[in-house]
Amino acid sequence: MTLAARTYVALVHYPVYDRDRQLITTAITNLDIHDLARSSMTYGISGYHLITPIAAQRELASRILRHWTPGQGPASNDFRRQALERVEVLPSIEDSIARITQIAGAPLVCATSARSSGRAISYGGLPKDPALSGRPLLLLFGTGWGLAEEVVDRVDRVLAPIQGGAEYNHLSVRSAAAIVLDRLFGDRN
Amino acid sequence: MTLAARTYVALVHYPVYDRDRQLITTAITNLDIHDLARSSMTYGISGYHLITPIAAQRELASRILRHWTPGQGPASNDFRRQALERVEVLPSIEDSIARITQIAGAPLVCATSARSSGRAISYGGLPKDPALSGRPLLLLFGTGWGLAEEVVDRVDRVLAPIQGGAEYNHLSVRSAAAIVLDRLFGDRN
Repeated sequence: MTLAARTYVALVHYPVYDRDRQLITTAITNLDIHDLARSSMTYGISGYHLITPIAAQRELASRILRHWTPGQGPASNDFRRQALERVEVLPSIEDSIARITQIAGAPLVCATSARSSGRAISYGGLPKDPALSGRPLLLLFGTGWGLAEEVVDRVDRVLAPIQGGAEYNHLSVRSAAAIVLDRLFGDRN
Repeated sequence: MTLAARTYVALVHYPVYDRDRQLITTAITNLDIHDLARSSMTYGISGYHLITPIAAQRELASRILRHWTPGQGPASNDFRRQALERVEVLPSIEDSIARITQIAGAPLVCATSARSSGRAISYGGLPKDPALSGRPLLLLFGTGWGLAEEVVDRVDRVLAPIQGGAEYNHLSVRSAAAIVLDRLFGDRN
């Protein structure tokens, strides 16, 4: 089983920072659901978890997903439906880990961050990490101004920030997730 | 001058296909403006052109841009303002080429496509292309179901489709553009 087929992506809406580095819960957005689902599908990722502790937000996400599942969304948008079939809505990172553990065993949990960290692992290094051998991988992406330190401090690994060659480093989470998946799993040529 | 600093990105809203391969003009979206501007800025791209022949759409885009330019948008969103300062709204691909020619000389025009093409150039090959030596590069991204063949047939180069390792190939244009810029200009580690 390839690493991509053992990998789960989680889009985290809490705990994340706002612009003033206060802990907040961000709102789920329709486009984040679609874009990350399509990117996950393109790279053969096993599942995509939407994480928010707010029940009304989980219900909203579930409604969007149901709209596109079989018998609902238009057949001509089949490629969207296919991508959304792998999405699950969960209340917390712990629930995401528990869900993966149930399906495929305890995952190695890896955060992504735009900030430099002393313990960052490279994109070439992560797939070769012995701790990942045969295990599932959970990649965490933070919305808002990024994952809270309490998360980053407790995960197994932290991926190196994306360096674009310029000083500016404010990719949208949609763009950042696409780039991370391509760096880890893309068939570069 | 690095290649990134000589590169322009254009998001093309006409001529592109709809799902039935009919030529259409897609609508400009707020999020496409922001996401591609932030990705362009991250990779040190010289400029980002929004292309639509519809005057009312150009006016809408200009209004969004003015909202974020100095004296208007909130200072706390400075990173958005910075990114949007490099955006220009133009009626056609020809106008985009003319604008770049005026500033920096005639660009090598390179289309991106999710479809395979006999004459595709690789991500490693394009930066070394002798025809690009010292010249600006214009990268065209199609909205909707992709750039019309009449465009792809007439450009100087076509980049290879992004291969994710799965059969599925339906990235959003926001994700695809981020990946292409990372493959060409990212500081991979």
